[in-house]
Amino acid sequence: MIAQETQRNWKPIIKQFEAVVGKDGVVRRKEELLTYECDGLASYRQRPALVVLPRTTEQVAEAVKICDQNQIPWVARGAGTGLSGGALPVEDCVLIVTALMKRILDVDLENQRIVVQPGVINNWVTQAVSGAGFYYAPDPSSQIICSIGGNVAENSGGVHCLKYGVTTNHVLGLKLVLPDGSIVDVGGSVPEFPGYDLTGLFVGSEGTLGIATEITLRILKTPESICVLLADFATVEESGAAVADIISSGIIPGGMEIMDNLSINAVEDVVATGCYPRDAGSILLVELDGLEVEVATSKQRVAELCKKNGARNITTASDPETRLKLWKGRKAAFAAAGHMSPDYFVQDGVIPRTQLVGVLKEIEALSEKYGYAIANVFHAGDGNLHPLILYDNSIPGALHKVEELGGEILKLCVKVGGSISGEHGIGADKKCFMPDMFSETDLETMQWVRQVFNPKGLANPGKIFPTPRTCGESAKAQNLGQFKQSEVF
Amino acid sequence: MIAQETQRNWKPIIKQFEAVVGKDGVVRRKEELLTYECDGLASYRQRPALVVLPRTTEQVAEAVKICDQNQIPWVARGAGTGLSGGALPVEDCVLIVTALMKRILDVDLENQRIVVQPGVINNWVTQAVSGAGFYYAPDPSSQIICSIGGNVAENSGGVHCLKYGVTTNHVLGLKLVLPDGSIVDVGGSVPEFPGYDLTGLFVGSEGTLGIATEITLRILKTPESICVLLADFATVEESGAAVADIISSGIIPGGMEIMDNLSINAVEDVVATGCYPRDAGSILLVELDGLEVEVATSKQRVAELCKKNGARNITTASDPETRLKLWKGRKAAFAAAGHMSPDYFVQDGVIPRTQLVGVLKEIEALSEKYGYAIANVFHAGDGNLHPLILYDNSIPGALHKVEELGGEILKLCVKVGGSISGEHGIGADKKCFMPDMFSETDLETMQWVRQVFNPKGLANPGKIFPTPRTCGESAKAQNLGQFKQSEVF
Repeated sequence: MIAQETQRNWKPIIKQFEAVVGKDGVVRRKEELLTYECDGLASYRQRPALVVLPRTTEQVAEAVKICDQNQIPWVARGAGTGLSGGALPVEDCVLIVTALMKRILDVDLENQRIVVQPGVINNWVTQAVSGAGFYYAPDPSSQIICSIGGNVAENSGGVHCLKYGVTTNHVLGLKLVLPDGSIVDVGGSVPEFPGYDLTGLFVGSEGTLGIATEITLRILKTPESICVLLADFATVEESGAAVADIISSGIIPGGMEIMDNLSINAVEDVVATGCYPRDAGSILLVELDGLEVEVATSKQRVAELCKKNGARNITTASDPETRLKLWKGRKAAFAAAGHMSPDYFVQDGVIPRTQLVGVLKEIEALSEKYGYAIANVFHAGDGNLHPLILYDNSIPGALHKVEELGGEILKLCVKVGGSISGEHGIGADKKCFMPDMFSETDLETMQWVRQVFNPKGLANPGKIFPTPRTCGESAKAQNLGQFKQSEVF
Repeated sequence: MIAQETQRNWKPIIKQFEAVVGKDGVVRRKEELLTYECDGLASYRQRPALVVLPRTTEQVAEAVKICDQNQIPWVARGAGTGLSGGALPVEDCVLIVTALMKRILDVDLENQRIVVQPGVINNWVTQAVSGAGFYYAPDPSSQIICSIGGNVAENSGGVHCLKYGVTTNHVLGLKLVLPDGSIVDVGGSVPEFPGYDLTGLFVGSEGTLGIATEITLRILKTPESICVLLADFATVEESGAAVADIISSGIIPGGMEIMDNLSINAVEDVVATGCYPRDAGSILLVELDGLEVEVATSKQRVAELCKKNGARNITTASDPETRLKLWKGRKAAFAAAGHMSPDYFVQDGVIPRTQLVGVLKEIEALSEKYGYAIANVFHAGDGNLHPLILYDNSIPGALHKVEELGGEILKLCVKVGGSISGEHGIGADKKCFMPDMFSETDLETMQWVRQVFNPKGLANPGKIFPTPRTCGESAKAQNLGQFKQSEVF
């Protein structure tokens, strides 16, 4: 197959794409294609044959049809900030980039919904409605640069997903271009729609079932009051216990984040918040939102529960400026990891909240075993861990060892009843771990769905599901039966 | 096909089923089969050939395999309380009833989840965990008799779904028996799972994709405080405006219900609550839950917004007994309709909340046009209407006219941007209206999914999707192309 691809005569195909999106909508010069070689997971790279930039649903459909008719694999890409390589090109593919589809198509404040094109930046949605007292809840760290289309593909999360849920809980409907180029509408403008929940199926399907070209999102009323509480503890165990107590008390904070000592010092080195004590074993950030009285009462209770679990200092802030200051370090955590070490590898796994302390101990043991420092930053309320493994990529073999370490952490998450991905997707990065989580029959069932929407395997091939060619010895999925043929693609 | 079915030799097949579930697990006498001729939608009836009552996942899988091997259509049934005929048998089918699968398999309070068999009654889930301060949120009117398996099949709603969402928002994972008899696990014990969201796909698929045999549910902390507020208004417009103002204020009540004058008088005739003024044009019930201070503040604001919109009297109750008294009439509304008239037909449609007043006027006009009284009871917060059409089935042709009237109401819902089903499913009852809501391509896409899970069409045939044979002239879906053959089944 690959041999055949490299012999493809692209000239007439480029003409076909240019007829759809115009000459300026096709990128084909090698140096311009560099940008598109990877997404946020920069350790995998592959240059696409061509980049196509449509502006409308119809142009996307036409572009997909050209791929379908010419048997060209294609990959959809939003802003390219994904961390699991979901938008990683495959050899000789066409990359369909939604960067020019940046229009907000409809705002309906009364019914609390907004319709956007996939290239609209996450943050713009809130900006478009905040004047009227509304906001869009899912807030990935990359929210000032990531696109809604990418959020839909990866079912992105964020700090506020503890209370408000991930992207799938906020998508009401989608206009989709399927891999055969047909245009369908799934879901709609009211929350419950009859028939199969194809909207839910598409959210998180990482571009393997089609491209969303219009997205109807639910927007929420801005809370009357928001308060951020920062507590520091001597150990991570103590802040973990505080989180358990807060949840048990029935309070559901907007977000609840823990950072360990290594992360604290990293961010203080870089952004010098002055709020995170360098000698603390951990800090806990709790954001409370709701009615003013509710927030005031919850704040008091959360503070009590922190003290009960050994909090040394507690700071609270209700005004936007001080709130931002308390959050500043957490928001800069990934960037700080980059300053602390030549390279870092961010892992994303989920564990049942009750396993937090035990899992952190095992991560520490793994860190010692492999000899790489690991800074821990996590959405503590929903057990979503983000261990940052610090390493130097210029040392031969380091990346491989770090990936192995990251893999051990994921297997640990699965062992305690958790998941190999909280909010970053599977993409190219984690597909080898799918058999650790799912039986062959479970994976086959998912692939039935892919086969039916994507029978030629042209839409984002090689993602999500393990393939013998790329997973090497760690793939248990070599016997995927009926899908083996198409999977090797 | 049907001619062939009626000639089937059931004796060896019955032996096969008996070998799996025992003699007492197979119901075959005609008089015993009467119970199973319909579900809550009693206007359609069909006796199944056989009823099979498994107790375990393995027995379900074996029963499904027998059907698969012998090309016997089968229909899954929970408690049989569904209102759209989702569990209506088809001719010569096997009905797989989950009534004996009533075990609670696991309770994990710390991680707020519970694993149950599908025959467990909705209300039992809350009972099992309420002592520890938890509850299960979705609460259909039938919650003391309906089963979780049926709730999953129909994606059931209830009064509290305004704040907490419908069944799909509370199902974390499923063990499923697919139509080929294979057993798969979808989703799991943590909220976000990688891969396609097959859990979401199965919830609401009305038994057309398989049977859920183990269901992992999310349980919530019981709110610290609950308050019910009852306001009466001279008109429905006023209570509708109050609802809009409450939502706009940012308060999200646990539930928000409106009843019109006809409903009020019906329930007062039957259960004599004494709380619903017979001369009121409408009453509005608002349930607020949360922290005590939050509920107190919200109660005051809701009362103010009701007054602003013309509320005549406002009663509030925080103790369980008085709360129950205020709810009593609403809970008895369907039963009261049965007392008011020999028969009633309950419709279930959704409209954007902002369309409430206009739609109620059009329903009134339809009521006059057809000459049938319509009592309106609805989940006002999320625009979920439940018009109760009162009629006398002993008058020839009455049911047909009432169904036509019900259909006009559904089309009205679609016209204003709503949906033909809020929480009762499509089943046998509403499939003819699917083309009013979806394009042919949209419906075909859903049927791709059905085809892949249910390629022989044996699992609950003739449900959800319109079929030329049953929909007559109202079906626009006669050209469903590749699905035509299997659909006629």
